[in-house]
Amino acid sequence: MTKQIEKWDYFEVQLQAQTSGNPFLDVTLEADFTHNHRSVRVTGFYDGGDVYKIRFMPDMEGAWRFVTHSNLGALDNQSGSFECTPPSKNNHGPVRVIDQVHFAYADGTPHHPVGTTCYVWNLQGDALEEQTLATLKTAPFNKMRMCVFPKRYSFNFNEPPCYPFEGKVKQSWDPANMRNLSAPAPQDFWDFTHFNPEYFRRLEKRILDLRGLGIEADLILFHPYDVGAWGFDKMPPEVNDRYLKYLAARISAFRNLWWSFANEFDLMFHLTLADWDHYCQLVQDSDPYDHLRSIHNCRGFYDHGKPWITHCSIQSHDLMQVPTWLQQYGKPVVVDECGYEGDIHLSWGDLSAEEMVHRFWLGFAAGGYVGHGETYVNDAEILWWAKGGTLCGESVKRIAFLRKIIEAVPAPGLFPAPRRAVGGTNASEWIVPGGPSSYQVASHNGTNYYLFYFGMHQPRYRYFSLPPGSYRIDIIDAWNMMVTRFADAVSGEVRVELPRKKYMAIRIEKNA
Amino acid sequence: MTKQIEKWDYFEVQLQAQTSGNPFLDVTLEADFTHNHRSVRVTGFYDGGDVYKIRFMPDMEGAWRFVTHSNLGALDNQSGSFECTPPSKNNHGPVRVIDQVHFAYADGTPHHPVGTTCYVWNLQGDALEEQTLATLKTAPFNKMRMCVFPKRYSFNFNEPPCYPFEGKVKQSWDPANMRNLSAPAPQDFWDFTHFNPEYFRRLEKRILDLRGLGIEADLILFHPYDVGAWGFDKMPPEVNDRYLKYLAARISAFRNLWWSFANEFDLMFHLTLADWDHYCQLVQDSDPYDHLRSIHNCRGFYDHGKPWITHCSIQSHDLMQVPTWLQQYGKPVVVDECGYEGDIHLSWGDLSAEEMVHRFWLGFAAGGYVGHGETYVNDAEILWWAKGGTLCGESVKRIAFLRKIIEAVPAPGLFPAPRRAVGGTNASEWIVPGGPSSYQVASHNGTNYYLFYFGMHQPRYRYFSLPPGSYRIDIIDAWNMMVTRFADAVSGEVRVELPRKKYMAIRIEKNA
Repeated sequence: MTKQIEKWDYFEVQLQAQTSGNPFLDVTLEADFTHNHRSVRVTGFYDGGDVYKIRFMPDMEGAWRFVTHSNLGALDNQSGSFECTPPSKNNHGPVRVIDQVHFAYADGTPHHPVGTTCYVWNLQGDALEEQTLATLKTAPFNKMRMCVFPKRYSFNFNEPPCYPFEGKVKQSWDPANMRNLSAPAPQDFWDFTHFNPEYFRRLEKRILDLRGLGIEADLILFHPYDVGAWGFDKMPPEVNDRYLKYLAARISAFRNLWWSFANEFDLMFHLTLADWDHYCQLVQDSDPYDHLRSIHNCRGFYDHGKPWITHCSIQSHDLMQVPTWLQQYGKPVVVDECGYEGDIHLSWGDLSAEEMVHRFWLGFAAGGYVGHGETYVNDAEILWWAKGGTLCGESVKRIAFLRKIIEAVPAPGLFPAPRRAVGGTNASEWIVPGGPSSYQVASHNGTNYYLFYFGMHQPRYRYFSLPPGSYRIDIIDAWNMMVTRFADAVSGEVRVELPRKKYMAIRIEKNA
Repeated sequence: MTKQIEKWDYFEVQLQAQTSGNPFLDVTLEADFTHNHRSVRVTGFYDGGDVYKIRFMPDMEGAWRFVTHSNLGALDNQSGSFECTPPSKNNHGPVRVIDQVHFAYADGTPHHPVGTTCYVWNLQGDALEEQTLATLKTAPFNKMRMCVFPKRYSFNFNEPPCYPFEGKVKQSWDPANMRNLSAPAPQDFWDFTHFNPEYFRRLEKRILDLRGLGIEADLILFHPYDVGAWGFDKMPPEVNDRYLKYLAARISAFRNLWWSFANEFDLMFHLTLADWDHYCQLVQDSDPYDHLRSIHNCRGFYDHGKPWITHCSIQSHDLMQVPTWLQQYGKPVVVDECGYEGDIHLSWGDLSAEEMVHRFWLGFAAGGYVGHGETYVNDAEILWWAKGGTLCGESVKRIAFLRKIIEAVPAPGLFPAPRRAVGGTNASEWIVPGGPSSYQVASHNGTNYYLFYFGMHQPRYRYFSLPPGSYRIDIIDAWNMMVTRFADAVSGEVRVELPRKKYMAIRIEKNA
């Protein structure tokens, strides 16, 4: 019987072969997967022992066949077939950019990323990792920022369960002095010609665990939080290339994968913009499925306009800039880091829950997307932002409330209202006046839907001039998670009364 | 007996003469005031009837004499003298810029402007104007933004008690339709060759009333909120010149005067930057005392670096930019409008009290200055920001608390801490890390004084690395107006515990 694989799941070919050389360096393996007249070439990988694998994510239902190509006889000219069946209920395919500034799954279902960050949750050992997954099961997040490599930073002093390369484990941490030991070149410790497949299998399991929860894995390929700990931030250029190709061969077939080329790329001072261009293009070239690609800044932005960048992944506290970025880059804007709810001593990790929720609303109600993190001090030093575990903050349930509101917007989502000044007597407004003295935003979906978020403002009333048609109006209390109907069917000039409180929004929807 | 005038008060010469011509256009009048070897030439003005006046503010104690020059015989070659006595207790002289980015009175007393705005309080009739003065008597403000010309805008529909020019009063307002009537050219109504001295006498009285309360009058010479109401925003260029010279002749001798060339100059679309350059230079040239000069934006800035601008008068919601502007212009930064506490329907007038106070702290604790306004809806439509009257907001007493804190800073005041990233394990900080994810600021006065304001952040603790010496540390709750001593005498590395609340500040002062 032909093997059956549902659309956007992955089909895996496993082959066995022995070689006297280095299977990571000396063996080539590819396969052509063919459906009717279309053929997709994918790269295989060595998975330890005498095992080689090829993974493929079919995007068309029906019969697929494949044939392999290798410089190793036992791997060459192997063929087979499978039947691609309809996707199951919660499988909508990989996420793509639609309508310039929004996202949807391949089946057309809108995707509004509501992300969180647990940078190295996947490197904490099974007990904590399972707890993180249990937390995510009921949390409102559908995207996770996470790293391939381990992290050494405040509140991150443990070693990973295993390492991505063979070699002797680097003694990198001096606990008495709370600092990294001085660092010989990483190649003095690691055998960069031999990946450790176990490390990557662990990563894959966790990406697939997220897939099972409907969560996109926004996978960070490089980051600067090593600084001599293991040296994975300063590998030789050819090792970086080999690492990216190996990773792409292993995991591109996972539909919930997003490529994040780096976190805070601009803190990896030894790499140039040309280096990043190269790594971005290399990943783009190594991924047959064209997964989403972004690169995250600390201060200065990489040019998100470059063609291999699919969306802006931004760090900034200033959510009022979301409309500017949308206009500037013409791509979706995901402010993955705008600060985290917490109380640590570092200024990006001590936001009140109110401020975290406020920033979410500013970003979403401007037509962008915002990411969450949590950094409350605790005795175990298990901070969600780094290691996962449990959530204790007050923003999470408000983010869940916001997610429901955003998911009820007509597809594909919200577009920022153009800013204009409003003057005169009873200045009515289509859009909220933006400009220099404002912490408020507005967005729309054609003339069907308008969302105004007032943030730190507390107007007692606002005037609106509605386009032709009948509209219903709701007043939303973002912090108290209340939706109050103000009017069921109004038209023309409307004065909307408001409760003179912070964190209020107005939603205006066209009646059918 | 020789007349006595205290230093920085003004001496007035009154002369009488008759002329068959237009005394505003045809009569020249100047006087040289001489003290020892120094001589200051000042311009006189016609004050109606057959009265001409010359006003002079002496800045040196001792004997002064004067002699007049005029093309009218009765006004020419008149002479006299007076004795300049020491200033009285509350008379510190006019305010100047010191130490690049701060202010002090002429006697050296630091001046930290804590401004408010009542644009046309001086054009409301005596009852309301006296009420405004009574309110100011106990309010924490030492600077008032106010206009020479009347204002037509939301909540501003009344006529002024009189008009600055002779002519027939323009019927400018259509109350049935709540709009300005279409506007014939203003010169069809007003006789721009004849000022109405009564209008200017009223203005002078109110500036001197403010002087009596220790309040600087930040006088706005032009503004765009006319739009056909009276046409004072669109007078012919030669009338603008004449108006500025006449005003300078009348009021330059008032020590509490600041020139604000315009409010929202960039909304007066018919004027070019070259026009503004001209008006600024004309006022500079017409003022013998070199009063402070600024020009206030709506969106884009005038170039505050120009030599006739003494300080930046800024409209912006983004107080985090204060250090940038200080660095960019090398002049004091006064954010005269960052939004107002209130609840009206316009986005710059509906800030919560918390947000108003927060913005004050952001600006002051960054080494700048911030201005207040209040815009609560009331049935009488007497909003403080426009007409004065009474204050009902919750920010005022917190601003008074802040003013006391700022006035206790060693002279001349605070300088912004340079921004730097802080990383590593227990990153101690001289300055609060700024950068992209921050709503917090820090400033210092050498190594004597440090102020850290955390705004929307709620750290549980912060590390500091103190310079040599013994320091005392206070924790300040900006909203609840509490100062709590954390340590009397500490040195070196310090961990400061904080209450995990918004709106907190830390003050670190060197012990003697």
